[in-house]
Amino acid sequence: MLPDAVTDALEADFDAHLERLFELLRVPSIANARGRPDPCRRCAELLCDQMNAVGLCAEVVVAPGKPVVLGSARAEAPDAPRLLIYAHYDVQPPDPLDAWDGAPFEPVIRDGAIYARGAGDDKGPLWASLMAVAAWRRAGGLPVHVTFLFEGEEEIGSPNIEAVVAEHADRLSADAAAVVDTPFFAEDLPSVTCGLRGLAAMEVTLYGPASEVHSGRHGGAVANPANALARLVGALRDDAGRVTLEGFYDDVRDVADAERVAWDELPFDEADYAASLGVDALTGGEDGRDVLHRIWARPTLDCNGLVAGYTGAGTKTIIPARATAKISCRLVPEQDPHRVAESFRDFVARHTPAGLRSEATVTATARPFLLPPDSPALQAGCAALREAYGRTPARVRCGASIPITECLQRQAGVEAVLLGCTSPCGNPHAPNEHYPLRLLRGTARAVAAMMQHLAR
Amino acid sequence: MLPDAVTDALEADFDAHLERLFELLRVPSIANARGRPDPCRRCAELLCDQMNAVGLCAEVVVAPGKPVVLGSARAEAPDAPRLLIYAHYDVQPPDPLDAWDGAPFEPVIRDGAIYARGAGDDKGPLWASLMAVAAWRRAGGLPVHVTFLFEGEEEIGSPNIEAVVAEHADRLSADAAAVVDTPFFAEDLPSVTCGLRGLAAMEVTLYGPASEVHSGRHGGAVANPANALARLVGALRDDAGRVTLEGFYDDVRDVADAERVAWDELPFDEADYAASLGVDALTGGEDGRDVLHRIWARPTLDCNGLVAGYTGAGTKTIIPARATAKISCRLVPEQDPHRVAESFRDFVARHTPAGLRSEATVTATARPFLLPPDSPALQAGCAALREAYGRTPARVRCGASIPITECLQRQAGVEAVLLGCTSPCGNPHAPNEHYPLRLLRGTARAVAAMMQHLAR
Repeated sequence: MLPDAVTDALEADFDAHLERLFELLRVPSIANARGRPDPCRRCAELLCDQMNAVGLCAEVVVAPGKPVVLGSARAEAPDAPRLLIYAHYDVQPPDPLDAWDGAPFEPVIRDGAIYARGAGDDKGPLWASLMAVAAWRRAGGLPVHVTFLFEGEEEIGSPNIEAVVAEHADRLSADAAAVVDTPFFAEDLPSVTCGLRGLAAMEVTLYGPASEVHSGRHGGAVANPANALARLVGALRDDAGRVTLEGFYDDVRDVADAERVAWDELPFDEADYAASLGVDALTGGEDGRDVLHRIWARPTLDCNGLVAGYTGAGTKTIIPARATAKISCRLVPEQDPHRVAESFRDFVARHTPAGLRSEATVTATARPFLLPPDSPALQAGCAALREAYGRTPARVRCGASIPITECLQRQAGVEAVLLGCTSPCGNPHAPNEHYPLRLLRGTARAVAAMMQHLAR
Repeated sequence: MLPDAVTDALEADFDAHLERLFELLRVPSIANARGRPDPCRRCAELLCDQMNAVGLCAEVVVAPGKPVVLGSARAEAPDAPRLLIYAHYDVQPPDPLDAWDGAPFEPVIRDGAIYARGAGDDKGPLWASLMAVAAWRRAGGLPVHVTFLFEGEEEIGSPNIEAVVAEHADRLSADAAAVVDTPFFAEDLPSVTCGLRGLAAMEVTLYGPASEVHSGRHGGAVANPANALARLVGALRDDAGRVTLEGFYDDVRDVADAERVAWDELPFDEADYAASLGVDALTGGEDGRDVLHRIWARPTLDCNGLVAGYTGAGTKTIIPARATAKISCRLVPEQDPHRVAESFRDFVARHTPAGLRSEATVTATARPFLLPPDSPALQAGCAALREAYGRTPARVRCGASIPITECLQRQAGVEAVLLGCTSPCGNPHAPNEHYPLRLLRGTARAVAAMMQHLAR
């Protein structure tokens, strides 16, 4: 149980914290925005000032991309465990603006929730973690040493986080990490995310005639790169939806029985999920496996983009000079993105017909991530959510990649639990994003509780 | 043999004709240009005035698209045969401008050739046909009744020619037609084109989720329209390059032995042809057939365009909401474009996986065209070229579609020979288009000779 002094401190300072969070939400810190002064830098500096104002050490660190804010707060006991807390201060663009009921960067409270771009993703949870640490300070002292890592490029795929972690590995070293950036699996179902898929993103271009040629005069003589690309991409999966890259499934590990059994008990409705995507049926991925298994624990191969020849209205009868496909694979433990990329290159070479030339490139990679069931981070995260919300949290995975987790595990030896912080209905990345005040409080309590559990 | 009076008249008026042709070349009559006053209308009116000035009846006819110029000149004998002459006054856009040595709409004579956009395609040959008729007039009278049909939309696929022919079928009725718009097969090898391929142009779109979705969160759950489109397009041809549409080859007629044997004697160099297209090898179309056969007498299926999802630089890991392919088939006698389109629709329906929706549309059709070997138009055309150039012309086909030929055959019962008028090296559709004066003279002589041969 959290000490009353901590709980009291959270409540006593709540309004002051809310005011600071609103200040933060007013900065349009879109990661790829071009403004002068750079709104991300402004946001990082404001955040740093605010952390100092609540008594925490913090500094803006020059990074290859947008600035990173590093902060710390020490426990009384020098040999106390160390907790690393990760969040991000950058936000998604607010478009389409006219779909918002208010202005995205003028936060308001309506129906018990903060409405603003970034309210739930991720400035609200970020601030909740600061509230937790500030409450422990006010209540007499921290049970663990805390380090904060707040980045400004999560929404564009954290392209520089690996360099940041490498550069500051010593300061980021910890006994556990909490990532405060994921939703509950369902409304009112606190959740920890303990697995993420990796990524191998590739691009293939087939080259045909030197420039596009008339498909009447030359059709039948010259190989068509668009036809060949379609055959190549079509051949990347078989009739049962399995990926045909050589060795693709060799390193795939089965899900532990206990984890799978737990998934069957989750409140998951396929029809609702299909409706939310606007499809009649969930027919993606491999045949014969249930949906959660397919999106969490099975690898995929998706074509993300295709372009060749004439794409305007009506008819233009040409043989294109080139055709390009963007392909990405989501990977699961223990798949290696570089091995997959190598297999893709081989596949492209083998499927390039005579008369055409091909080029395959790798555009992004991320390794899959899985927390061991006995990891202290996972244990402490589950206990913390149970205490904050009074019920046992669900252990789930997520099909996406959040680069920081695997990066911390691999580069700094730190295991990170993704602590559910937001509602699945809070419209992240969409108009009218909002964050219920009860989840802001809950996240602050959960982080405070995790500090306590880690100290035991 | 042409009467000396006709030959003399051609020479006597040559400079005056050249001046009128230059006037015509100065009008930038690009079919889809947007200028006010419309340069195509201006060109049609100028052409009409010029025809009147050389003593021919002509009028600008209001058509659904760009204006059509109809003209006529009568023989002395009321029951003389009737010849229809077709050409077009519209031209290709001149881009890229900086690749021209001069200004594309300021004709000049250099090294014995007229340099200008439209010089060879098709204002030069058009004017040559007027020269021939004017020469006969000056020499005493025409051996045949002549009707001129000059259109202004050939370069954009003659979208309205069918309506024009239907509307004026009576006036266009003739014993033979000459289309003056095709090149020699090789430099100094006069040629008649007696076959053209038809066209069925289609478009298919597969629809997936209501809007693009994150391929990490949802990859494996939702069917990907880009992957499915690739499979569908890939399946449209088999490993040997044959089209897999049901019944596609049912109506394909073999080439007559005599015609095929003649093709073997044409001066055709595969390596030169491949080099002109910028490819190493001519690997398009069906395996096991030679190149001329593949481009002239075998049907094809080419993907003219592909577009889906993200096509910018780098990575965006999404499942697209839709994916579109443009597909066109070149058809040979006796294939029916509507039957092919119907088979395509069936194919799309059968290859649309569960969880996706598809839409197939037909965007253009043209029937294949073949002149019977004993057609009077073909006989007269060959005799005319032989007389104009002193050697037996080659009988060739062309893989493209020129809608007027099949349209005249089907709608007005008129058989048209495509009389070779230009050099294959004259850069039609490209910078520095030019038309040798000797071919301007030759085409005028050939048309004059065809009139004579038809009257026999």
